[in-house]
Amino acid sequence: MAAKNVKDSLAKPDAEHLKERYTAIRSFSEALVEPLETEDFVIQAVEHTSPTKWHLAHVSWFYETFVLEKAFSNYESMHPQYAYIFNSYYLQTGEPHQRSKRGLLSRPTVSEVFEYRKYVNNKILQFLDTASEQQLQEFGPVIEIGNHHEQQHQELMLTDLKFLFAQNPLKPPYRELETSPQKEADDLNWISFEEGVYHIGNEGKEYTYDNEQPRHRKFLEPFELSDRLITNAEFIDFIEADGYRRSELWLDEGWATVNEEEWRAPLYWFKKEGAWHYYTLGGVKKVNPGEPVTHLSYYEADAYARWADARLPTEAEWEVAAEGLPYEGNFVEQGLYHPRPARSNDTTLKQMFGDVWEWTMSSYEPYPGYEPLPGALGEYNGKFMCSQYVLRGGSCATSQTHIRKTYRNFFYPDARWQFNGFRLARNV
Amino acid sequence: MAAKNVKDSLAKPDAEHLKERYTAIRSFSEALVEPLETEDFVIQAVEHTSPTKWHLAHVSWFYETFVLEKAFSNYESMHPQYAYIFNSYYLQTGEPHQRSKRGLLSRPTVSEVFEYRKYVNNKILQFLDTASEQQLQEFGPVIEIGNHHEQQHQELMLTDLKFLFAQNPLKPPYRELETSPQKEADDLNWISFEEGVYHIGNEGKEYTYDNEQPRHRKFLEPFELSDRLITNAEFIDFIEADGYRRSELWLDEGWATVNEEEWRAPLYWFKKEGAWHYYTLGGVKKVNPGEPVTHLSYYEADAYARWADARLPTEAEWEVAAEGLPYEGNFVEQGLYHPRPARSNDTTLKQMFGDVWEWTMSSYEPYPGYEPLPGALGEYNGKFMCSQYVLRGGSCATSQTHIRKTYRNFFYPDARWQFNGFRLARNV
Amino acid sequence: MAAKNVKDSLAKPDAEHLKERYTAIRSFSEALVEPLETEDFVIQAVEHTSPTKWHLAHVSWFYETFVLEKAFSNYESMHPQYAYIFNSYYLQTGEPHQRSKRGLLSRPTVSEVFEYRKYVNNKILQFLDTASEQQLQEFGPVIEIGNHHEQQHQELMLTDLKFLFAQNPLKPPYRELETSPQKEADDLNWISFEEGVYHIGNEGKEYTYDNEQPRHRKFLEPFELSDRLITNAEFIDFIEADGYRRSELWLDEGWATVNEEEWRAPLYWFKKEGAWHYYTLGGVKKVNPGEPVTHLSYYEADAYARWADARLPTEAEWEVAAEGLPYEGNFVEQGLYHPRPARSNDTTLKQMFGDVWEWTMSSYEPYPGYEPLPGALGEYNGKFMCSQYVLRGGSCATSQTHIRKTYRNFFYPDARWQFNGFRLARNV
Amino acid sequence: MAAKNVKDSLAKPDAEHLKERYTAIRSFSEALVEPLETEDFVIQAVEHTSPTKWHLAHVSWFYETFVLEKAFSNYESMHPQYAYIFNSYYLQTGEPHQRSKRGLLSRPTVSEVFEYRKYVNNKILQFLDTASEQQLQEFGPVIEIGNHHEQQHQELMLTDLKFLFAQNPLKPPYRELETSPQKEADDLNWISFEEGVYHIGNEGKEYTYDNEQPRHRKFLEPFELSDRLITNAEFIDFIEADGYRRSELWLDEGWATVNEEEWRAPLYWFKKEGAWHYYTLGGVKKVNPGEPVTHLSYYEADAYARWADARLPTEAEWEVAAEGLPYEGNFVEQGLYHPRPARSNDTTLKQMFGDVWEWTMSSYEPYPGYEPLPGALGEYNGKFMCSQYVLRGGSCATSQTHIRKTYRNFFYPDARWQFNGFRLARNV
Repeated sequence: MAAKNVKDSLAKPDAEHLKERYTAIRSFSEALVEPLETEDFVIQAVEHTSPTKWHLAHVSWFYETFVLEKAFSNYESMHPQYAYIFNSYYLQTGEPHQRSKRGLLSRPTVSEVFEYRKYVNNKILQFLDTASEQQLQEFGPVIEIGNHHEQQHQELMLTDLKFLFAQNPLKPPYRELETSPQKEADDLNWISFEEGVYHIGNEGKEYTYDNEQPRHRKFLEPFELSDRLITNAEFIDFIEADGYRRSELWLDEGWATVNEEEWRAPLYWFKKEGAWHYYTLGGVKKVNPGEPVTHLSYYEADAYARWADARLPTEAEWEVAAEGLPYEGNFVEQGLYHPRPARSNDTTLKQMFGDVWEWTMSSYEPYPGYEPLPGALGEYNGKFMCSQYVLRGGSCATSQTHIRKTYRNFFYPDARWQFNGFRLARNV
Repeated sequence: MAAKNVKDSLAKPDAEHLKERYTAIRSFSEALVEPLETEDFVIQAVEHTSPTKWHLAHVSWFYETFVLEKAFSNYESMHPQYAYIFNSYYLQTGEPHQRSKRGLLSRPTVSEVFEYRKYVNNKILQFLDTASEQQLQEFGPVIEIGNHHEQQHQELMLTDLKFLFAQNPLKPPYRELETSPQKEADDLNWISFEEGVYHIGNEGKEYTYDNEQPRHRKFLEPFELSDRLITNAEFIDFIEADGYRRSELWLDEGWATVNEEEWRAPLYWFKKEGAWHYYTLGGVKKVNPGEPVTHLSYYEADAYARWADARLPTEAEWEVAAEGLPYEGNFVEQGLYHPRPARSNDTTLKQMFGDVWEWTMSSYEPYPGYEPLPGALGEYNGKFMCSQYVLRGGSCATSQTHIRKTYRNFFYPDARWQFNGFRLARNV
Repeated sequence: MAAKNVKDSLAKPDAEHLKERYTAIRSFSEALVEPLETEDFVIQAVEHTSPTKWHLAHVSWFYETFVLEKAFSNYESMHPQYAYIFNSYYLQTGEPHQRSKRGLLSRPTVSEVFEYRKYVNNKILQFLDTASEQQLQEFGPVIEIGNHHEQQHQELMLTDLKFLFAQNPLKPPYRELETSPQKEADDLNWISFEEGVYHIGNEGKEYTYDNEQPRHRKFLEPFELSDRLITNAEFIDFIEADGYRRSELWLDEGWATVNEEEWRAPLYWFKKEGAWHYYTLGGVKKVNPGEPVTHLSYYEADAYARWADARLPTEAEWEVAAEGLPYEGNFVEQGLYHPRPARSNDTTLKQMFGDVWEWTMSSYEPYPGYEPLPGALGEYNGKFMCSQYVLRGGSCATSQTHIRKTYRNFFYPDARWQFNGFRLARNV
Repeated sequence: MAAKNVKDSLAKPDAEHLKERYTAIRSFSEALVEPLETEDFVIQAVEHTSPTKWHLAHVSWFYETFVLEKAFSNYESMHPQYAYIFNSYYLQTGEPHQRSKRGLLSRPTVSEVFEYRKYVNNKILQFLDTASEQQLQEFGPVIEIGNHHEQQHQELMLTDLKFLFAQNPLKPPYRELETSPQKEADDLNWISFEEGVYHIGNEGKEYTYDNEQPRHRKFLEPFELSDRLITNAEFIDFIEADGYRRSELWLDEGWATVNEEEWRAPLYWFKKEGAWHYYTLGGVKKVNPGEPVTHLSYYEADAYARWADARLPTEAEWEVAAEGLPYEGNFVEQGLYHPRPARSNDTTLKQMFGDVWEWTMSSYEPYPGYEPLPGALGEYNGKFMCSQYVLRGGSCATSQTHIRKTYRNFFYPDARWQFNGFRLARNV
């Protein structure tokens, strides 16, 4: 029945299409790490980040565990210990190596990890070349989960690397990158939406994770959304209005965190000669006023909204607003690896996809009637439905073919190392 | 405008009624601590609990800060430092003494705290005797907030004391207490509710906190609730089915907590000669199978529900189900200080009020259009709307005059020292 | 053989003398706590301090465990759990209640602890009234250890209470106390000592703990000692010379501690209207320049000495210098509970006994040939011979009848809550 | 005067000899890391270990800071930030990069670090080629300190690598290594030494660190030393006698550590199929009964000694015993990287040099009259003279040209990752 669930998510799996997509995604991971030195693949800077080589291996383990070991009788992995080392958190497949210890593994080396990737690639392609229709029905959808899973880790590789490089006094750039011209954004406009019972969740016409289902009804009071993301210039106003020092703007938990961590600006920001600068994947730059602000916690987004006499959107509001919009924007394919300013002279809803993930005020919860995938794959999303908050829309580090309007990303409210930003909402 | 908000919550404040209620509630606090030794008033066992004498003083500080200092020009407190020592978390009234240090204060003594209470009582009663109609309009509602506030702390005094006594190898009882006869509960039945757009939140006909407002609409899919709370016997089945050791039953955060804290049963439970016992406010007893299970975290309630192929209710579902039910049950006035078994031979919805607070699966969030009270009183509820979960219905330590169907209690998902339990819900 | 050891330490135990001394010491404990409120007996402010009532009970447990339970067949304690609750760290007598949890015990109450003391007193006096010569030979010396043990805890009660009261924003005094007139000390003079092989350790003519034995030989290079203790005025010079901010003056461990703890002055010191004040057992006072500085860690004493181009004495040097000096000075019997300035116009060695414990540069180690007492009594001193430093001479909180020239007190180098101070030494 | 101290330590520095020795030592560092993969150079497994590439760079920084920057006017380092990144703990040369963050630096890369080494080598050799006699007098001794400093870090590179590899489930060997044949050691014999006033400390005829001086007199009571180190077989007896579970054998601090860390055997030991195995630099092997036991804390050595009715030697006793012995044994030059069994049929004092560092019972303290080198070089040894314990004799990871009989190594008593072992002493 679970297999049915998975199958439904991708009607008519087609071996050729799968091979193409599999190959493209796997190659893209390798293209992303092309600028790195061997040393850059090894380090786990903090517990919630992982070494690049771990990411590259873990995504391979995923295909092994959920496809190859089931599709081939007597499948043998490249190394008997990889299943232990490269499992992330799937308890039903066996006790994983401790998350906090991923940075202790100088071996396998980077080149061994690349060999491991090749080993898995060969097997997957071999499977797709020889699979019966029934096998394709069963494992095609799981390969597609693996593809999306790898795309998620591509984003994590970039954000984890950014975090790592930012810790280094040498501030090495990931790549030389172009920057948008320094320019203020247009004024913020508000877009209105009517009250009503809306359908929320994935209809099943496009790819879906289990957590986007089932489609269900939700009553929304009328609301308004800002037509674009909040910018660096606007956030500097908040800083200069002493926003980080005024307890009445903050959630209790946020206030405790701000003081404990001594936050005074978004992550990666610092002042140099009186001006705000930040570390970007292109190195240290002067903060661009017109760009969407990013690398913020939920607490900071929420405090800004309170200061601005507004609030964050709910995820349902965001999804209603996203209805009908094309999945276009500043994605990882663009190669900017950094958010860019909104179009000028355009008062319609902008920047809904790409640039930065948008914090919503919605706690990450199961939809009414939610059922996780059966077995270990059900651990993918379901067991995290507690104490985290939903983000929507993808970022400049997300693949365009990975995102959709019903996609639910989630992080703890103190998470800042992702490309997280926000837009405002308000009641009517 | 906020004052208006407050005022609305208690139409026509009436000095006589307020005096009566004020006096009754203040006396009840003192009656509750009557069995204690002086030593019992002093200790803060862990950061999230407070010494009894701190509770007794803090609730007095509340009336001073929000009523007396504003209503009387040149009001002088009994001691210039009490405003610092007995503030809990209201940052807009001045930096409070650190929460973790409440147990370091051997002075003021218990008898000084009682004098302080008398001092405040005299002033409040003097105010009520002499207040103009306009003053009554302004401060009557605030006194009533103070009354409810004191009732909340009465519950905390009991749960904090229970926690403290349970740490003591001597396991002193709070009072000698009667116990319910040991007996299994009737089978669980399910009560059905229809889908629809429901009105949720306080209508304003009864007392309300700001977080119960505004009344708003919510669409609910059809659902069922268990007719009674889950019992100790049922929870023992879960334990014996190895529930605490099966990762697939737990939220990720819950699993981490269970392992870190080595939880193997509800708080206060231990095995003696092969049988489950627990510490109760009446001392150590053998666990009664028919009683509602209590002293559970959200994680444990959630894991049980998953094991039982069900889920926890949402707070909206609970509120819809509570519609029209009388606020009757096993409250603190009963003097049991412990949950009791559900009525037998009754398949209607039982135990909705009293006995134990019921965990819901709803994150504690602002209702659409929520506005906190203005000024420091707005810190009462609003700033905690993050990462906590809603509980409904009151417990055996709650005052009957404090609870209502729209009342939203909230705790972090790992909180076990309150009288927390749960009932099940399921989709249709 | 161990019993022999103990016996030797007090030749010819005499029942009358023992009763007198026992009674005097036990009464003195009770006199010391006479100014306290019940609430003051309960709190454990930090792990290394204990509640007053715990001290009062623990010293009684000591007599029970090491005398009564062995001397009387079928001895019954007042309560079967006291042996668990009031054991400090004697692992050979059974697992003790966790040190960090002494502040969680509101029961037994203070008055129950006083009853417990009476219960033990009666039994000890009954024993001394009826003991045979042989019993007296065996247990007389152990009672005398118990007496000294209680005297140690008398000092700890005072220092733990001082620490507790100092945490309280109300800064309650322990007693009203006289203060020495504010006046600078005479200039520091140096007293010279010759090189040679000296005998160090207790000769056995006076009472001894096991750690003062055996008497042994030690070669000392020539050295000089300052004739008095370092004063507050001198230490203020160090502070004003930026002593707490100059890394080159500090041991590596000390520097880490200073920065982590943000130490900028001795414990209990703070500036008020530009002048240094401190909390004393008589309440908050202006710092007296001529008094010995106290409440310092080893690190601070060591840094001061380095700044002053000197060093701390070794414990052997101190003991050689103390040879022949009477055990006179500012002890607890004086009732000052605070160090006092040295005599003026006197260039001989002063303040060797009383006032403040003097940090030596000697790690607390066994003397050559050291043998701990047998059994659990051997845990009294021996197992702490690691990572701690020796202090000599007693303080204003020490009993005159407790101290002697060979007495070795010891604390971790970061300990500040004892009456610790220092004098200087230098090479010739 | 301090400069004089340094100069004295190497009479008549000779440019040719210095070049030879400098070159040999620098090359040996590079030879040691020859078997490593690039990934192995990067990781800091715990705070007290460092990445290999950090070691390689830091030792270069040492020559830069203490020689090149002073000897050459306008010296320019290869990179302006290296002085910050590669300083370890010398506060007088500027704030160092935080120790705990050495593992966050993927850049400079390994090959950049090798370039940096070359850069420094060229400058040092250029200096030695062109230095005046006076310059040689001034900086020759400092270069020699740098050489010894690099030798120390060679040992740390090996022990830090061993620690790192041992964390890896793949247990990669550092090199393929020969192992000694499995064989029990000969019985332990005792060697006697007379009482007397001995001269301790470096006479100045061989190289010396400041902490070995001044030479001074010390009285020793008569004592005996075991003729060889304690072996694995002997330590297994202790384990099997439940040594890790018997509180009476342990120092208080040791007992706390054993329980907190759950130590049940030396570091790197584990049981496989009923037999003790350990991770060695040659990979996982079966424990060899006749080898000296190693990777033990002071606590474990001390507990074993107490169990064996003996004690650890003092450092003075060890030094007296070492008098006249040649500096021969199993050093790093041997290429075993592991201790080896003592010679058979030889009852003289064995294994005093090489194999394992020997824990002494002596706290690491300044000798009477000790003066640290002036300036930042004085931080090399002096500021650590607190809470650490002295080890003597060098290990299988120490250079033969680095060790001498007066050499004082020191570690905290819980340190296990060095090649630490022990021999026994006893009183006569």
